[in-house]
Amino acid sequence: MITSTTNPRVKQVVQLNTKAKARREAGLFVAEGLKLFREVPREWIHAVYATEAFAEEHKELLAGTEVELVDEKVFGKMCDTMTPQGILTVIRIPTYNREDLLGRGGSPFIMVLEDLQDPGNVGTILRTAEGAGVTGVILSKRTVDLFAPKTIRSTMGSIFRMPFVYEEDLSEALDWLKKHQVQTYAAHLKGEHSYAEENYREGCAFLIGNEGNGLTDALSERADHLIRIPMEGQVESLNASIAAAVLMYTAHAQRHQ
Amino acid sequence: MITSTTNPRVKQVVQLNTKAKARREAGLFVAEGLKLFREVPREWIHAVYATEAFAEEHKELLAGTEVELVDEKVFGKMCDTMTPQGILTVIRIPTYNREDLLGRGGSPFIMVLEDLQDPGNVGTILRTAEGAGVTGVILSKRTVDLFAPKTIRSTMGSIFRMPFVYEEDLSEALDWLKKHQVQTYAAHLKGEHSYAEENYREGCAFLIGNEGNGLTDALSERADHLIRIPMEGQVESLNASIAAAVLMYTAHAQRHQ
Repeated sequence: MITSTTNPRVKQVVQLNTKAKARREAGLFVAEGLKLFREVPREWIHAVYATEAFAEEHKELLAGTEVELVDEKVFGKMCDTMTPQGILTVIRIPTYNREDLLGRGGSPFIMVLEDLQDPGNVGTILRTAEGAGVTGVILSKRTVDLFAPKTIRSTMGSIFRMPFVYEEDLSEALDWLKKHQVQTYAAHLKGEHSYAEENYREGCAFLIGNEGNGLTDALSERADHLIRIPMEGQVESLNASIAAAVLMYTAHAQRHQ
Repeated sequence: MITSTTNPRVKQVVQLNTKAKARREAGLFVAEGLKLFREVPREWIHAVYATEAFAEEHKELLAGTEVELVDEKVFGKMCDTMTPQGILTVIRIPTYNREDLLGRGGSPFIMVLEDLQDPGNVGTILRTAEGAGVTGVILSKRTVDLFAPKTIRSTMGSIFRMPFVYEEDLSEALDWLKKHQVQTYAAHLKGEHSYAEENYREGCAFLIGNEGNGLTDALSERADHLIRIPMEGQVESLNASIAAAVLMYTAHAQRHQ
């Protein structure tokens, strides 16, 4: 039983929760709560921490898993949430190749995120992406860290199932998509066609830009198509995760007609 | 110039920022930032507070507006955000009748929100709703307060343009919708038809449930149609504002073909 906040393992978890650099260097991240523990592939688990009360209540679930018990107060310090559920899993950060993004059979369906800054948006896009049948996600290096606690929570477990790569140079990634017959669609306020007029049944990728500034010109100029989401009233733009969802589910509807 | 946090007007703003009851009793709410000041209908303004630096920089914008200058530190205390822009508007809470929700001409397009708890979700739904051409929003009494600072920010100004009513009894509101030939579509995990198969060109209303529990049985049983949003992979549900957006923009696409 860990009873002190000076325990090095407690300190490590706090570091992993608060510092992207610590996560990168250790190749580890933290997922809080029952749902994420249930859904994480067993072989990704690095360590499991739980309160005594949680371990007592979930004996069956934890059978066969090495669990480090932690005093309730200390456990609270290890958590990013205000009302911890009593279980916390330290997980190895998965790594994928570009080829993993293309899916198995079927036509690739890819999201490209450029410099998104809101952890909730990025997590929500991963969750929606899994729901819509996206095969993989490409993130620019300047997009927020996928493994921040808030992003992980927003993915609702999709982080364990959605292949992703961070790319230094998205233009180069677009060239690679072209080579694989994936058409790229940039969500852009100056798009010529409405998103609803295009055909997403073949290999397709949607480019989503930063919350405040949209896509950079450098990137949108390299896209095969500029599309716009029409907006009534005085709305100037949609939230990035909302725009992504509208596009992803439009593609989903076409692909499953 | 207000220079003390004990000034009663400062105290009032803090109350309005932090307490739904204070907002209800005063019939006022607070909107921070330049964009919201620009977009609020002039006749809704109750008071405007700004830092000297902001007032100096935006003389033209503020010409003709009575602005109370506030010392920078005190202004920080009046704000809910960490990095205040230097302007804050106290605004009268608008009130609408049910008839206002039906739009002017065209067929009504209404969102019904049951017990939503996340301020960001509710604000984002209002923003997306305006973009998709929704004519009005109905909220259950137990839905979070529309006028909390985070909700207001998430609406990005749509709060000024989207008619809404809070209803004690949503079932009764559904009866009223029926009387106005508005078909009701409940987003439900057990929906028989995919949302994409329905026709939303005539008067329609989408029912969106609480983040954790979805719609209550009592309400979804009274809807004309149960629809589902198909989900691939292991996704159990979509974020409420995402589900709402997929439905609203599907209706928008049909209505603007």
